[in-house]
Amino acid sequence: MTPSLQRLTIVGLGLLGGSVARAARTRRAAAEIVAVGRTPGPLAAARAAGVVDRTTTDLAEGVGGADLIVLCAPVGALPGLVRAAWPHLAPGAVLTDVGSVKGAVVAAAEACPSRDGVVFVGGHPMSGSERSGFEAAQADLFVGRLTLLTPTARTPEAAVARVSRFWETLGSQVRLLSAEEHDRAVAAVSHLVHLAAFALVAAAADDALALAGPGFQDTTRVAASAEALWTDIFRGNRTPLLDALADYRARLAEWEALIRDGKWEALEAELAQARKRREKLG
Amino acid sequence: MTPSLQRLTIVGLGLLGGSVARAARTRRAAAEIVAVGRTPGPLAAARAAGVVDRTTTDLAEGVGGADLIVLCAPVGALPGLVRAAWPHLAPGAVLTDVGSVKGAVVAAAEACPSRDGVVFVGGHPMSGSERSGFEAAQADLFVGRLTLLTPTARTPEAAVARVSRFWETLGSQVRLLSAEEHDRAVAAVSHLVHLAAFALVAAAADDALALAGPGFQDTTRVAASAEALWTDIFRGNRTPLLDALADYRARLAEWEALIRDGKWEALEAELAQARKRREKLG
Repeated sequence: MTPSLQRLTIVGLGLLGGSVARAARTRRAAAEIVAVGRTPGPLAAARAAGVVDRTTTDLAEGVGGADLIVLCAPVGALPGLVRAAWPHLAPGAVLTDVGSVKGAVVAAAEACPSRDGVVFVGGHPMSGSERSGFEAAQADLFVGRLTLLTPTARTPEAAVARVSRFWETLGSQVRLLSAEEHDRAVAAVSHLVHLAAFALVAAAADDALALAGPGFQDTTRVAASAEALWTDIFRGNRTPLLDALADYRARLAEWEALIRDGKWEALEAELAQARKRREKLG
Repeated sequence: MTPSLQRLTIVGLGLLGGSVARAARTRRAAAEIVAVGRTPGPLAAARAAGVVDRTTTDLAEGVGGADLIVLCAPVGALPGLVRAAWPHLAPGAVLTDVGSVKGAVVAAAEACPSRDGVVFVGGHPMSGSERSGFEAAQADLFVGRLTLLTPTARTPEAAVARVSRFWETLGSQVRLLSAEEHDRAVAAVSHLVHLAAFALVAAAADDALALAGPGFQDTTRVAASAEALWTDIFRGNRTPLLDALADYRARLAEWEALIRDGKWEALEAELAQARKRREKLG
């Protein structure tokens, strides 16, 4: 199979960037894979592993000449990276990202001067791990997972198609939605869920934690995630997260009242509804 | 190895009772295994699978002559089962259970008339599954898991030793604590965690749920659990659960304020503390 991309550049070789590199190499998504990083460690590791052809710490050099550039940096750094990369992109290049929050980065790209058919398409693979760093990167991280793309009314279809094809090559299914819809939905199914898991651990006393069984382990697995990354995400999605948190706290308050008042049938009906919705997810 | 028990009786062949039967048979914990159930289906399935020697729907007949009797019924049914079984137990018999709440069943046993060296020891294997019923039973469900026993000041050491040895034979590690300590701790690390997971699903809109990734799947796995069993547990542990829920809601309210006020360093410090405590659990 001929790779559909001539040159793929990945900016940032953490868990996600490293996994994109490994997956792209394994699945021959590009003839050449270039990595841009700030520190030499992950870049050297990626070269040694053979998952990238060339690395650089110079953003302008790394993104120049690529037909697809994937920004794999923390959410808070993405708008600045879009602005910094933009003047150095080759004509017709498509820039995308893997950030968990889309509003700010999409807005930053929309504010960049129009030039040479360069296009930004916001992206977010719904994959991850409580682990971080290049050493945790996996070639199959995206297989069978959704990747969400957030084109705007102005995004050319060909650019969306290029990014969609890329994620499909990596084993992912692609869905399109607006940045606003994205940020509201992931606030509920990802950001709040992390916050809730961190809070379950924080609220448990040490003697109780010592008795934790498999249910607690599963429910709080994501609370082993890197706090700096998640603070950055919560900050980037502040308003939708506050909305989702308010809905959640209201639900807990209602159920607390049912328990306090001994309304067990009503509580059981609520739990049944949640159980049925959860079972549909498999 | 000679089985340490002559006759083991298991009352209730759901997920836990069925797993106790399978584990006891596999590990030769008893020369004879008797099962008591209310409906013939699981009893016939257990006989057909060869994991029990004899079954009956008559409680008095099933518990008579056993040296260890394990009650594996829903939490709300346990106090009544202790009272119903008590007069039919053989001299020197030890009665135990697997209930997730210990206060009421321990109190019910303490209120039974003293007779013939018959002893109750409250028990709770910290194992489980979101699945239920005999068909989900597994012989290795208790391997590497904690089982909590809640003897009182009046419980003879020999009875605690018999129940401890039984769970250790099934692959579990045993820890002793008071029923009150137990109920407070499991409210935080099990009961609240289930309630929180059900509420995360309930609070998410359908369009958001459709985008759920692996983090959501893990965090809410326990929300696929049977609502009737969990309502029964919440009811049985009402006050400790309300206390744990109040602590949790207070924590969420504090973090909501940090997010609203943009106190990101303070939030990150809280998340870091939770992350470190979670990592210790493995």
